[in-house]
Amino acid sequence: MAVTIKDIAKVAGVSYATVSRALNDHPEISDETKKRIKEIAKQMGYTPNAVARGLVKKNTNMIALLIPDITNPFYPEVARGVEDFARENGYCVFLCNTNWDEKNEQKYLNILKERRVDGIIIAPVSVGTYEYISKEKEDIPVVYIGSRTEDDTSSYVVIDDFKAGYIATEYLIKLGHRNIAFIGGHDRSTSHMDRINGYKRALMENGLEADINSIMGYSFKKESGYGTFLEMIKNRKVPSAIVAENDIIALGIMESAERHGYRVPDDISIIGIDDIEFGALPKINLTTVAQPKFEIGQTACSILLDLISGSVDSRRVILEPFLIVRGTCKEV
Amino acid sequence: MAVTIKDIAKVAGVSYATVSRALNDHPEISDETKKRIKEIAKQMGYTPNAVARGLVKKNTNMIALLIPDITNPFYPEVARGVEDFARENGYCVFLCNTNWDEKNEQKYLNILKERRVDGIIIAPVSVGTYEYISKEKEDIPVVYIGSRTEDDTSSYVVIDDFKAGYIATEYLIKLGHRNIAFIGGHDRSTSHMDRINGYKRALMENGLEADINSIMGYSFKKESGYGTFLEMIKNRKVPSAIVAENDIIALGIMESAERHGYRVPDDISIIGIDDIEFGALPKINLTTVAQPKFEIGQTACSILLDLISGSVDSRRVILEPFLIVRGTCKEV
Repeated sequence: MAVTIKDIAKVAGVSYATVSRALNDHPEISDETKKRIKEIAKQMGYTPNAVARGLVKKNTNMIALLIPDITNPFYPEVARGVEDFARENGYCVFLCNTNWDEKNEQKYLNILKERRVDGIIIAPVSVGTYEYISKEKEDIPVVYIGSRTEDDTSSYVVIDDFKAGYIATEYLIKLGHRNIAFIGGHDRSTSHMDRINGYKRALMENGLEADINSIMGYSFKKESGYGTFLEMIKNRKVPSAIVAENDIIALGIMESAERHGYRVPDDISIIGIDDIEFGALPKINLTTVAQPKFEIGQTACSILLDLISGSVDSRRVILEPFLIVRGTCKEV
Repeated sequence: MAVTIKDIAKVAGVSYATVSRALNDHPEISDETKKRIKEIAKQMGYTPNAVARGLVKKNTNMIALLIPDITNPFYPEVARGVEDFARENGYCVFLCNTNWDEKNEQKYLNILKERRVDGIIIAPVSVGTYEYISKEKEDIPVVYIGSRTEDDTSSYVVIDDFKAGYIATEYLIKLGHRNIAFIGGHDRSTSHMDRINGYKRALMENGLEADINSIMGYSFKKESGYGTFLEMIKNRKVPSAIVAENDIIALGIMESAERHGYRVPDDISIIGIDDIEFGALPKINLTTVAQPKFEIGQTACSILLDLISGSVDSRRVILEPFLIVRGTCKEV
């Protein structure tokens, strides 16, 4: 027969409630007691029963997906991955849009706490999000997506953003490009910094210089690509190839280039990162470095349910980005 | 001072509970009693207090958005409209994908009932959905989107689909086209039938014939556009213009046409319906009849909250579609 919390309580000489609280990391139980009881539970071969845990912890079987904006073409597939996995496991998912606003995000985090969701998957608005959550969180399991945290106690699912930047740049170098710019957003997120560092590393390893002027852009939106390319034209500093930090920016660059007489890829090569659905349309045909979006959602949800059931303390998954060659880059 | 349920109970000579139940259309109260109490409440100038009602009805302040697939480019904006309005009014929204499957849909409806959501906004998988809901529903307010019901007791938000089909066809006729085909999906939904009827009417009013062979297609996906156009080529029956039932189908037609040597719009004019985001990309530049997607979501949520608060019994809103002229249609 399976070992129960009652059995552990008997052996440890404490109450049922104390065992339950210790195993669930309740703040009122001392670390020493927690350690002792967990040790006993382990020795007795105790495996937590998900249903019983639910009863003890009063699980609501509700989780939340907190993202900047579902109309951003990156998120629907992530959301689908989350919801599919959640549904198959008896969970319902609140969809929450922060509209890239930290105040909305914090408001929502508080609402979700009040509603006693079992856990949250969040694509943070900014690095401030981590600070807020680590300060305010009260035992609600959280999985970050899109951007990793620096510590190793949080859980997240990201792609290897360094590699994404590296792959994109290396591909252009292999096509013979020497003058390669990077157009991106502007923030302190790890994904942003990692992509830039990947770009720099690929240049360096190939004896090319990444001077500070070759890294441009001001937001993660299409306008940043459009406007920055326009500036390049004005300053007569149009490179032979551009790495765009995401596909939306790449589309902005393409529009700007074509409207001003530059042919893609004959006059300029452009590569994006993300692989949003409509980049694949034959008329767009954007070469890009893909993120497995559905898998990101699915994996994040799987980790979250493990955190909720208590079967893991934290987990960090870094998925592999991969090159998709289409028609916007050309050998020189 | 505001009239309370207690005041009404005193006047009507019944208990507080009976008044509350009568005003909330409880099935155990006879129609006669309901009518009498509602009459008294009206005469006394009673306006239900939302908070009090919430306490009586045990509102959960949770609603659900049940759609076929959030990765279909039509839905993210609708979802955003729903969620924005819900959030501003203290509601959280479950995102539920049915994957165009009636069984999933029914399963989800049952789950949502068990979870005691206050109401549901649903884009039905098929006309079978109405039957299922009207048979099974137990006082959960429902607002339909995308496709209307035939009865006039349900609530829905749709566009005037007849007009959408009409506008698209009329525009092509005004450009001089005489041989205009319709490529669409295949089901019994009102939106499908209405769009076809709008197409037919526009042809008829202009002395053109809508023979049964000019209405083709087999699904609401891109493949239906691609494959059907291919068939037209094989049968040597390529028209001079095509009305696509939605933008996704239109993109399929465009791809098929261009891959087989037809230039758009020089050799063939194509118009879609919906106005999905990436139809506006300069390289796609799809002429279309737009649906106000955000407004559909917002309006549906507003009606749902009115149904929940009991301030309306049902409401039907038909929004206006409008022509967006871009580059895929040409005068002949």
